[in-house]
This record gives sequence, structure tokens and C-alpha cells, in this order.
Amino acid sequence: MKLTIERTALLKSLGHVQSVVERRNTIPILSNVKLEARDGQLKLDATDMDLLIVDSAPAQVVEAGATTAPAHTLYDIVRKLPDGAQLELDASADNGQLVLRSGRSRFTLSCLPIDEFPVMSGGEMAHRFQLNPGDLRGLIDRTRFAISTEETRYYLNGIYLHALSDQSAPVLRAVATDGHRLASVEVPLPTGADTMPGVIVPRKTVGELRKLIDETGDMIDVSLSDSKIQFAFDGAVLTSKLIDGQFPDYERVIPAGNDKELEVDCKLFADAVDRVSAISTEKSRAVKLSLTPGTLILEASSPDCGSAREELETAYQGEIIEIGFNSAYLLDIARQIESSGLRMSMADAASPTILREADNDSALYVLMPMRV
Amino acid sequence: MKLTIERTALLKSLGHVQSVVERRNTIPILSNVKLEARDGQLKLDATDMDLLIVDSAPAQVVEAGATTAPAHTLYDIVRKLPDGAQLELDASADNGQLVLRSGRSRFTLSCLPIDEFPVMSGGEMAHRFQLNPGDLRGLIDRTRFAISTEETRYYLNGIYLHALSDQSAPVLRAVATDGHRLASVEVPLPTGADTMPGVIVPRKTVGELRKLIDETGDMIDVSLSDSKIQFAFDGAVLTSKLIDGQFPDYERVIPAGNDKELEVDCKLFADAVDRVSAISTEKSRAVKLSLTPGTLILEASSPDCGSAREELETAYQGEIIEIGFNSAYLLDIARQIESSGLRMSMADAASPTILREADNDSALYVLMPMRV
Repeated sequence: MKLTIERTALLKSLGHVQSVVERRNTIPILSNVKLEARDGQLKLDATDMDLLIVDSAPAQVVEAGATTAPAHTLYDIVRKLPDGAQLELDASADNGQLVLRSGRSRFTLSCLPIDEFPVMSGGEMAHRFQLNPGDLRGLIDRTRFAISTEETRYYLNGIYLHALSDQSAPVLRAVATDGHRLASVEVPLPTGADTMPGVIVPRKTVGELRKLIDETGDMIDVSLSDSKIQFAFDGAVLTSKLIDGQFPDYERVIPAGNDKELEVDCKLFADAVDRVSAISTEKSRAVKLSLTPGTLILEASSPDCGSAREELETAYQGEIIEIGFNSAYLLDIARQIESSGLRMSMADAASPTILREADNDSALYVLMPMRV
Repeated sequence: MKLTIERTALLKSLGHVQSVVERRNTIPILSNVKLEARDGQLKLDATDMDLLIVDSAPAQVVEAGATTAPAHTLYDIVRKLPDGAQLELDASADNGQLVLRSGRSRFTLSCLPIDEFPVMSGGEMAHRFQLNPGDLRGLIDRTRFAISTEETRYYLNGIYLHALSDQSAPVLRAVATDGHRLASVEVPLPTGADTMPGVIVPRKTVGELRKLIDETGDMIDVSLSDSKIQFAFDGAVLTSKLIDGQFPDYERVIPAGNDKELEVDCKLFADAVDRVSAISTEKSRAVKLSLTPGTLILEASSPDCGSAREELETAYQGEIIEIGFNSAYLLDIARQIESSGLRMSMADAASPTILREADNDSALYVLMPMRV
């Protein structure tokens, strides 16, 4: 393999793939990125066995071929080379080394043979549809904060993506929950997604996917089977194993009969929660909401520090209710609300509360109360 | 104590003092900031027993008095209150509580009596002089990276500040070293500093001082005794204990007879060191410099990754020499060089090397080589 390539083009493609590679690997080949030169292109593959990102960059290929090189080291070198530099990549000596030359710089990297590089079996991806970047970004950003980090509940360690096609306005819905809170966001169901199975997309995949979205303006091609999902961008393609588990029947935890409706200005509410949480103990982070007609009072206290109290005017005219929440969870949700109004639907101090945007039902959050 | 104060003014003063307060304290009073209202001013004191910062802010004092309140909590609350808010601070109930009111927010903070607050005995500060902010900033920024973090060598855990008055151009010099490298920076000796003792200013003091410098344009009043140093800004006053130890006779490690002189473009050199260090092992970070007439070659290698080589043209015409350095230390020094040229004076591969700006002798760095 021998080629020349612009530093900018290589840096962009390496940037897309290198973060898949873990910093510490027991299997040496997993530290490497696969490089394949052919037909005016350098193709780059990086994988951790569960997640594969493939990207390519235009290159002047002098001699077609392939090798694998340490991903983070290569990225580090290319990043540090001057803007506008031309690079030569040369593995033609067949001595297990890749030579990188640019100006008066020369790097020799130890390579591993490409046949050691793991192959992610494609398999038939029977379901195909397109998503626009804005929709996919919304599905991710407004749910990922609720993904569980408990490894024992592996089936909650991702976003549950599924189609609800048997209703008047069919939707594609993303749901994440850690047992304390749940986030559910939906977009109109894309054509071709109606028969897709419900799948759980792992957290790491969600993170890598999110980075790629910001660089594209084009529609994203999504393909999936029962065990894999693929997102094809203009250039980069991300393929990931899915979490092999059963996502819980989350609709059961979304209460239907919450009759105490409160609407508040989201920013004023979030600021007030943030301030009273300055007092709440680091461990519980509890804040108490007391609702009386016309007024919402937020309170927090800590045996060490003292107490805090904030008042907000509301149009609430229902029964008096006192209910406690984890202030960090309330703030996580308030940050996802794009409209100015936040709507809370409560039942009582021990039952889950629903939070929504005032004028938009596409996102729904459920929060378990705390005893305060 | 009872007063009203603008949020902006209180935030600025609290910002100056709060970072002195450690996050974890075994002595409760050390978590608190002392608040004293009198004569249209709120005075704030924060200390960790070694370092004291005092600042004040204009306030409308309704009832003079004093108390102490949790510093980080108070800062957190004031920071989160809206811009332009007016605050009322009220400890007049004498029940060990400070009440903070602003708009519809109300916070009650547990206080501790002011007589528990440690007093830093002033003592006579016989030596007084003035420094301009730019000079003090230079003395700090260009030496602090070399301060030792080894607690057993406590006398190296600060910057050694001393006067050299018996030479034709008297100077105030700052020196820091960790045994591997040494940084020495000097400014013209301020009037009144000629009789000052050599003092070691602790690292934490250096950090807090550095933050205050950026907010002032006025001359800084420096006072010191054998055991304390004080920096008075327009408003804030920082008083610190000095490190009670003997700074080593550093002039002995500055070699006099280094005859191999190399001058390089500092940016090109630093970039080249940075790039080859992508290959050097994480542990040693070694980079080898090979000098032959006209050319400087930088090389690094690692058993895992491979090797790197960079070439720079130079005007060097001396003997051939090979010498190794820690690349991180080389970069620390290169970042302090303000002129475009970096001058290195070497003796041999085992002896300390001197680094300087090409056209300015006010700063001098000594770096021990590594075996490569």
C-alpha cells in the first residue's frame, strides 16, 4: 500500500473512527485502525467488536493494498502535523511497518496483518428507512440522559427504538430509563420503518452516532435486523450490535390518571430548582415542591448548611400537594424542554409524575418522586 | 448584621476569596467565610490557616455586625441568582443563622460565631515595595510549571523570590525547580526590595495570587517579613505564610561552560518535539536530539508503536552531539518563550542544558538530560 493524502481529509476520517477504539485493549489488533487504499480512496475501519465505523477519504493511490496501524498514535500524529500538509503513507516494504512522511517528518508505525482484523458479519438487514439528522438528533439528545449505567440491568444500557404503526399517526419512538426516570420521544414514522422490530441501541453506539450527526445535513440511511443496526452517512457508516435483551414494558409505568396539572415557565422553574439545590445534601439532592392554588414553593434543606425556599406564581387551582424529587433529575429534564412552558401532571406524593412541554406532546418524561 | 448588596459586587468579592476555602475541612470554621458589615462595606475573609484573602464590596449597611457562613454554599447561591439582583443579608436575629433574601428566594444558612474564625497574626512586615502586574505575572507564569510536587521536598514546593542587589543591574528574581528542571526569571529590582530576605512562596498562594493579578491594572503593594508575605491589590489583600525552609543554592546547578550553542525557531522546534512525542513511550517521554552542522534531528521510539524522526535546519556549526530530554519538559519551557527564537547551550549528553530566549536574558531554564 502506498498513497498520498491531504492531512485535512485524513484527519476528518480518522476523527470519525478513532474514538471507537478503546484506550486499553487486551487484544492488540483492536488498538489498530484498518487502512485500505484502492480506487482513489483510503478506507478506514475501526471496531471494538461490538461497534464498527467505516469512513473513507480521497487519496492518490500509488499502490493499492491494506494494513492496520495503531489508531490513537496515527490520529495524534496527523492532528499535530501542520494544516495543509500532504502526507505519504507507505506500507509497500511488506516488513510490518507503515511509514508516514510529510515535509521533513517521518514516522514508522508497527503494523499488524489485516487478516487479524475482526470482521463484523453483515447479515441481512431487512428493514430500511431514512431519518433526517434533526429527528435523529432529537431522539438521542432528549432520551440519552436517562440511560441506565447499571451493568446488571444491561437491557436498560441503551435507547429502545421501536415503531408504533397501528395508531392513527404512526411514530418512531425512542425510550430510555434507569428505573428512577424515563424519557420517551417520538417522530413521525419514516416510510419503511413500520415493520421494524423494537431494538435496544447501546450507549457507546449512541455516543458515536451523535458525533457523526453534527457533520451531516443529508438524510441518514438506517438499516436493521434483530441483532444489528447500521447508520449510513454521506461517507461514514456505523454498524453496531444491538443489546440482546428484552426492554421492559415501559408503557405500564406511564401513569394515565394524573389529574393535578401544573404549568410553569421552564426557565424560571429550572433556575429556582438549581438555586435551592445549592442547599440540598450532596447525597439525596432532594427538593420539595409544595403546590397551593396560585403558588408553587420549592424547598430544600440540609442538616449542615441550612435551608432554601423559592416561590413561583402559577395558574394552578387544584388540590394542595407536596411532592419531592431529585433536583438533578428535574434539571436534566428541564434542559430538554425546548418550549418556554413545562407541564407537570401529578397524582400524589408517592406516584410517578409526568413532565412535558407545554405545547408539544412528542416528548414525555416520567419521574419517580422521593420521600421528603 | 443586616445589609443589602448588589449580586454582582458580592459575587466578585466572594469569587476572590472562596477558592482559598478547601472543599473538605476537619475544622468546621475553615469551611466558612467571615462577613463583616460596617461603614458602607461588606468585608469578606477566607483562610485555610496558611493563606488569607480579604476583600470588600460596597453595601448598604442597615445594622453593623459580623458572622461567618459556609463559603462554597454562599458562593453557589449568589452565582445562581439572576444577574442584577439585589440581596439582603440578615443575621440580626442572633440565632446562629444568616438569612439571604432576593426577590422570591430565601435561604437560611447555618453560621458559626466569628470568635472561632482563625486570626492570622500580622506581625511586622518590614520590607515593602511595589510591583507592576505585568512583572508579577511574568515571574509567576514563567516559573510555576517547574515547582516540585514532592511533599518530602517541601522547600521546593513554591517559588523562591529574592533580590540580587549587589550587581550593576539589581534584579528581583523568581526561581522554581523540581530537581529535573529549573526556571529562573528576573525583573528590575523595585525600590525598597533591596534588603528583602529570600522567601519561598507556596504553590497554593501562587495560584490564588495569579487569579487576582488578571483583575487589576494598578501597581501591587508587596510587604514581607521572614515568615509572611502580603500582596495588596485595589480591594483584595492576600496574606500568606512562607515555606519555612532553605531553598537550595540553585546557582550551582546553572552550568557556566556550556559551549555548544544552538538557536532554533521556537515554534517549529516545539511542533516537532510535540509530533515525535506522539511515539515516545508514555512512561519515559524521551526524545533524542542529534546535532550535526546545519541540522537538528529529533527522534523518538517506542517498542509498541514504532519510531519518529523530524529534521530542522539550523545554523549550528559546532561538534556533533546527541542528547535526550523529557519531551513534556521541553514543551513546558518552549511554551514560556515569547520571542521567536530559542537558544540552547549544551556541554555534553550527561550535563545540564541551558535554554533561553534568543534575544532576552531575563528568563533562564536549566534542563537535565535523559539517557536515550
